Amino acid sequence: MTEYHGLTENAVWNQLRQLAETPFDLTQTGALSRQRLFALRSEMAGFRLLYATERVDDTTLDALQRLANESGVVSQFLAMKKGAVLNRIDGYDSENRMVLHTAVRDIFSDQPFCPEATAQAKSELAKLAAFLDQLASGMMLNEQGQRFTDMVLVGIGGSDLGPRALYLALQRFSLAGRKVHFISNVDPDDAAMVLQGLDLSRTLVNVVSKSGTTLETLTNETLVRAAFVKAGLNPQLHFLAVTGKGSPMDNPERYRESFYMFDYIGGRYSVTSMVGAVVLGFALGYAAVIEILRGANAVDLAAENPDIRQNIPLLLALLGVWNRNLLGHETLAILPYSQALLRFTAHLQQCDMESNGKSIDRSGRPLAAQSGPIVWGEPGTNGQHAFYQLIHQGSTVVPVEFIGFLESQFGEDQEIEGTTSQEKLLANLLAQSLALATGREHNNPNRRFGGNRPNCLLIGSRLNPFAMGALLAIYEAKIAFQGFIWNLNSFDQEGVQLGKVLANQLLDHLQEYRQSGARKGGEADESSWAMLEAAGVLGYSA
Amino acid sequence: MTEYHGLTENAVWNQLRQLAETPFDLTQTGALSRQRLFALRSEMAGFRLLYATERVDDTTLDALQRLANESGVVSQFLAMKKGAVLNRIDGYDSENRMVLHTAVRDIFSDQPFCPEATAQAKSELAKLAAFLDQLASGMMLNEQGQRFTDMVLVGIGGSDLGPRALYLALQRFSLAGRKVHFISNVDPDDAAMVLQGLDLSRTLVNVVSKSGTTLETLTNETLVRAAFVKAGLNPQLHFLAVTGKGSPMDNPERYRESFYMFDYIGGRYSVTSMVGAVVLGFALGYAAVIEILRGANAVDLAAENPDIRQNIPLLLALLGVWNRNLLGHETLAILPYSQALLRFTAHLQQCDMESNGKSIDRSGRPLAAQSGPIVWGEPGTNGQHAFYQLIHQGSTVVPVEFIGFLESQFGEDQEIEGTTSQEKLLANLLAQSLALATGREHNNPNRRFGGNRPNCLLIGSRLNPFAMGALLAIYEAKIAFQGFIWNLNSFDQEGVQLGKVLANQLLDHLQEYRQSGARKGGEADESSWAMLEAAGVLGYSA
Repeated sequence: MTEYHGLTENAVWNQLRQLAETPFDLTQTGALSRQRLFALRSEMAGFRLLYATERVDDTTLDALQRLANESGVVSQFLAMKKGAVLNRIDGYDSENRMVLHTAVRDIFSDQPFCPEATAQAKSELAKLAAFLDQLASGMMLNEQGQRFTDMVLVGIGGSDLGPRALYLALQRFSLAGRKVHFISNVDPDDAAMVLQGLDLSRTLVNVVSKSGTTLETLTNETLVRAAFVKAGLNPQLHFLAVTGKGSPMDNPERYRESFYMFDYIGGRYSVTSMVGAVVLGFALGYAAVIEILRGANAVDLAAENPDIRQNIPLLLALLGVWNRNLLGHETLAILPYSQALLRFTAHLQQCDMESNGKSIDRSGRPLAAQSGPIVWGEPGTNGQHAFYQLIHQGSTVVPVEFIGFLESQFGEDQEIEGTTSQEKLLANLLAQSLALATGREHNNPNRRFGGNRPNCLLIGSRLNPFAMGALLAIYEAKIAFQGFIWNLNSFDQEGVQLGKVLANQLLDHLQEYRQSGARKGGEADESSWAMLEAAGVLGYSA
Repeated sequence: MTEYHGLTENAVWNQLRQLAETPFDLTQTGALSRQRLFALRSEMAGFRLLYATERVDDTTLDALQRLANESGVVSQFLAMKKGAVLNRIDGYDSENRMVLHTAVRDIFSDQPFCPEATAQAKSELAKLAAFLDQLASGMMLNEQGQRFTDMVLVGIGGSDLGPRALYLALQRFSLAGRKVHFISNVDPDDAAMVLQGLDLSRTLVNVVSKSGTTLETLTNETLVRAAFVKAGLNPQLHFLAVTGKGSPMDNPERYRESFYMFDYIGGRYSVTSMVGAVVLGFALGYAAVIEILRGANAVDLAAENPDIRQNIPLLLALLGVWNRNLLGHETLAILPYSQALLRFTAHLQQCDMESNGKSIDRSGRPLAAQSGPIVWGEPGTNGQHAFYQLIHQGSTVVPVEFIGFLESQFGEDQEIEGTTSQEKLLANLLAQSLALATGREHNNPNRRFGGNRPNCLLIGSRLNPFAMGALLAIYEAKIAFQGFIWNLNSFDQEGVQLGKVLANQLLDHLQEYRQSGARKGGEADESSWAMLEAAGVLGYSA
């Protein structure tokens, strides 16, 4: 792998740069012909990608195909699924781990890519099935012999964003009488707000931390345990753990049940492991969890196709590289036309930016090209009334990935002025794609739209558990493919360490100050002491 | 105003460009001295801005002061408050309106800047006070003689984001037994999900649309009215309107009560008008609304100070211009270390990007410089476990505005390992600021942090109604100041029109197709017809 040096050293790089000087002009008359709209489409696992509104033509796509071939992305993806140690930096101290989030959904085949990891996943799934059965049958009850109605997930980052995004997306399919809540932030108001409305006696608490040492999570767990004790309840009957085997949290005296995740699954790729499965199983039932895994697995398999025109995540990855590195756009808006996906972009923001927000390659050398974009977005049509002004007429071009579904989830709709709400939603979705691409001339300069704002549409039928799993896996694969092309390690996160070190230093100062009433420390600490003083934190009392 | 041609034509522009070649280096040993940290601080309305971690020194600040003076921002701000017609493009058809969101909180002085607008605001506030009294005293009851417990706000964009952000921020101060819900998206699942859990008989519905013609809002109102009728309830007893006087929604036969907003208040600046006041008054009570207005008004007055070092919104505006136009950063992350502010960045995203995401100046000429940045962000510490990897080590520099409070809202906290959660939150906040600025050398390239990532800290004491109003007004003023410097019209949103036109065209196609079972239209419509077909919308049935 190390003989590959990254984007700018591909043989096709110069050709791409030349093509980028005159990218396809979407504003020409007839640019978005019927022929083009139908030709630039791809299908996979129930989704359809329309990319006629990207600034590419056949020549560009052929060059991007060459880029994919030359950078060996598909073979690296296969190696990943088989357990290659891809989470590493050659020649330097690094995590040195396999990357096997795909293994936890590779459960439908007799010949899984990585049998050991899949066996571990199946064993955890069996534990979960038994646990959910006990809940459903009424064998598992609270102190008063009542059923559990609520679950609070205590976790942060990958242990929060993915499970939360999927729960909100699929909440409509919840089992009767089951609700889920989330506590993530170390801000004490987060726990206080959530606990305020809960009947703790009927609540399970699902504490999620791979290492079992995450500061925010342990702090919030302590706050929540105190609330249970205060309410006269026995935490051991209410608390579950999702953690690494043998972690400090792997302790049956403190947790009614422990589910395991493994060091080969990164937090931001852990939704389909027990990190997401326990909470989604509680809310939606076991069958829905399996459907999510089935959808994800369908994509994991289809993503092996080396033909970029037949491989949606690979195509998205290459279009992203085209927009980022060749056309020079720093950000990517992911705009789902589905209110249920209201936190999905936040999950992808983590998954993408923590994976590919890097500056060195897999041998520790500085990258020659820009890496991961800034990913952001909110659901449409809401965003149309918020930030779309800038994406249509601002001075910065923002590439967009739209997501939509032909049907609503509830089907509770009504025809108003001749069309349903779902039709209005879809009409707006497609209209935005057209408007960004083609623009409009006008003799009032304020009503002129420059167009040529690249975007694509990812369309599914209905947002159900299978589709959610597939959509998740499309993005996970896209992000991995981009990391391979940029030749960076998408699976570590050393960039979060410095802040932790400094936060601990500041906490030490606060304790020191409390004990002695004075600041200590030498000149090396001047900035951190001064920061505490300048902000008014030192010695503050309400 | 038109003799001012924008940023690049200021006399100080060339000096700023020269300074930007060697911006202050935050990574030098001792760069963040105690002296610097205390010197680069500013205070206003209970907030303190720490900006020692921006890439500026005294010379830069003096140049930015000159920029402020030369572009006459403070005098334009004063003119705005007095009712100048700033929402216009000279020489072209445009909205031609005053910009008077400040007038609705200019209620504490005997000599308001714009007496007529303030008189209208006071009259609406009196109506609101009477309405809230009737609710509180039990004079206003439902069909069964019960009190109203819930309010659903139906609105989108400015009629949703601001009220929602402030409600979530201040929810902790809610009156007992009062809850608020929001329906915004035309996605029918949005209304279905919210209605699912409600006791409609005890619910008020607050429909908010200035024009009284917003597609999403009227559609959702119709869905919600149908649910009331289905439940055997009389909508007129439950529905309130916030709208322009004389709009199609200004109709006592359909609404129990109407509150007015005026054409001189833009949607994204309308939180402190009846758009926010009705829902916040229902949740928090009238006194809290007045406190929000008091906080906003305090900033509106203090923001007249021409000394940039004494004027937080002006300083933020200029630091933003420095980062955007001189250092070349396209985005701005606003990261509140307060879970209660979980939707405040989404509100600011609208307020900023819809205001300043423009490409022409106030005379219709193309802007010579970049305008508004892409604004995005999520609360800390959550973001630390999500996208901070990129902002520390990614290939793109992201300027950050941090927001934090010395105290929590609930005060329900606990010392764990020697410090409280609130202390941990603040330590993390300050640590992130330091880490981004100073970076760190390391012999493992993956543990190296480049530093020089500009950021600042806005610190308040406690997030209460007054502080919320002040914080909101700081950002509203900042955005207006930046618009003045860029010489653009921050108060229109022509960029949302093309999408609306095309969406209507697509809806016409859908109706045509339904009626005739075939596509019509000439070649001019080819793209929109083909888009409907290619996406699979035409003739789709579930």
